[in-house]
Amino acid sequence: MSDSIVVGLDIGGTSTRALVATAAGTVLGRGRAGGGNPTTHGVEAAATELRLALTAALAPIDPGQVSAAAMGLAGAGRLLADPVARAAFDRVWDQVGLRCGYDVTGDALAAYASGTPHPDGTIVIAGTGAIAGEIRDLTLHRVADGHGWLLGDAGSGFWLGREAVRRTLAVIETSQERVGLPDLVMAELLGDPATGGGPPAGPARRTVDALVQAVAAGPPIALAALAPLVVRAARDGDPVAVDIVAEAARLLAGSVGRIRSAGDRTPVVLGGGLLTGGTPLSAALTGALRERWPDAPLVTAGDGAAGAAWLAARTLPEVTDPTALHHRLLAAPA
Amino acid sequence: MSDSIVVGLDIGGTSTRALVATAAGTVLGRGRAGGGNPTTHGVEAAATELRLALTAALAPIDPGQVSAAAMGLAGAGRLLADPVARAAFDRVWDQVGLRCGYDVTGDALAAYASGTPHPDGTIVIAGTGAIAGEIRDLTLHRVADGHGWLLGDAGSGFWLGREAVRRTLAVIETSQERVGLPDLVMAELLGDPATGGGPPAGPARRTVDALVQAVAAGPPIALAALAPLVVRAARDGDPVAVDIVAEAARLLAGSVGRIRSAGDRTPVVLGGGLLTGGTPLSAALTGALRERWPDAPLVTAGDGAAGAAWLAARTLPEVTDPTALHHRLLAAPA
Repeated sequence: MSDSIVVGLDIGGTSTRALVATAAGTVLGRGRAGGGNPTTHGVEAAATELRLALTAALAPIDPGQVSAAAMGLAGAGRLLADPVARAAFDRVWDQVGLRCGYDVTGDALAAYASGTPHPDGTIVIAGTGAIAGEIRDLTLHRVADGHGWLLGDAGSGFWLGREAVRRTLAVIETSQERVGLPDLVMAELLGDPATGGGPPAGPARRTVDALVQAVAAGPPIALAALAPLVVRAARDGDPVAVDIVAEAARLLAGSVGRIRSAGDRTPVVLGGGLLTGGTPLSAALTGALRERWPDAPLVTAGDGAAGAAWLAARTLPEVTDPTALHHRLLAAPA
Repeated sequence: MSDSIVVGLDIGGTSTRALVATAAGTVLGRGRAGGGNPTTHGVEAAATELRLALTAALAPIDPGQVSAAAMGLAGAGRLLADPVARAAFDRVWDQVGLRCGYDVTGDALAAYASGTPHPDGTIVIAGTGAIAGEIRDLTLHRVADGHGWLLGDAGSGFWLGREAVRRTLAVIETSQERVGLPDLVMAELLGDPATGGGPPAGPARRTVDALVQAVAAGPPIALAALAPLVVRAARDGDPVAVDIVAEAARLLAGSVGRIRSAGDRTPVVLGGGLLTGGTPLSAALTGALRERWPDAPLVTAGDGAAGAAWLAARTLPEVTDPTALHHRLLAAPA
């Protein structure tokens, strides 16, 4: 008898990723398409990206052979509650020839599962938004933050970008020299290199007004696009950026502290674009977490689609060692 | 020869106030109408409120006798730059029979002038928004903050309201008892008294989601409507509210610190709905300012229309003692 085949999906704001693998941990196919969140992209656009990603990943096999599937999705609860979105996803499922069902989980659980097979632990994600979650028995037990940019997402990409503009405004108002991050922010928002510090009051106020208006011209969430400037400046040792990153790490550790008790030795998985890839924020957060939870393993999230595939596979009868399967699935280069 | 007559106007988001007085300091008439800011209310609606307030204030006199006028207006620069708004205001001026010109100043200067006749000092305003300004020779020399709710307004009514929701979300997520301010916030946003602390994870998350959605259902600035809850709870000694108010005072003092040097002994005028009327925030800010500027007189703003009338009158040739005129105009009950 050949191994069962599973599908894992990681559906996010910027990409939809699919992975097809055997229950023994051999990756058979991968697919990638654009952002596929039905809440933010619209149901039809999301369904199209889902079909593209699945079609590519399933190309090497007969889709009818797939026996289990899981998808990690930001706002999973909204998909499950929305019959139109659910019907569109079901239709794609049929179109690509899949005959098994699929579990929908939050992207937080898929990210967690991409980092560790341990049933209990903590996930903290900082991308455009930010959230921390307690995982118990591989379900999301409770969360802190994830409240969106207006009320929360403390330490997120949005938060970093907003803070970068705030500090820039303060630098201008106090006639400090505009170097480093403030210089980068002004060039990005005004398309104009800084003219140097200490201008008279009139021009300073006009610069402040121009920055405020440049931000107001876009949707608030566009402030997240400034986060890479903060990351870059922090790497270069710019004191303003280093300070912002330290504060973001403190806020993220604070969110973790809301849902994780002192002395907890279960793993903490760091996910999201700002906490993977060795960013200054992941370094700062690692430091903050080690201080409060010195005995906890800290793990960087891997491929969310592989995490979802593992979630789908781990309860198959033939999978006798889910931990070994995790190592095989997540060790495979994405 | 009878005294010259002046008109002062204070045009804000919630009301338009007019005051007619003699250059000797006798108040002859007052008028009040709805919010008249052309930027936020639209030019025609603003012009209507201006006409109502002026008509009432001018009723006891012949408008043709008025020799000087000043209006304090949030976003004064935008009125001056907008020919349509300017033409609409000029038309009202003609309609009510005024023949003198009028000076347009920011509401910050009018608020400052309502508190003190001293030519140099500082104004700090906390209402829906927040701003601090340095006054030199009775002109607004430079400002800190006033950046709007997305980027600034630190310590404002919006800030207090947002912080109240944030703290409420944190209380729910950490399963603390929902008493005091969190209880008030939940009742206000969900129309539902708190059910008591420590619910299991599911219901807590649903409550968090309901709060986030209740806020998302309105414009962000509507969070300012929660500020009175914070003020009330702080008066009652609620520790969460007291902490929020202390942080707001720290932020407002920080904005003042950006535009006021250590050791400055000129007056600081406290204006805006959150800093007049003996609120806990004005008490906390007074404490924070006394710590940094122990020798500065701290004054509460008075009637902005009277402040504007004084600005219009003080340079008339017959006004030989502007300070005495200030005392008379601002001592009159509004």
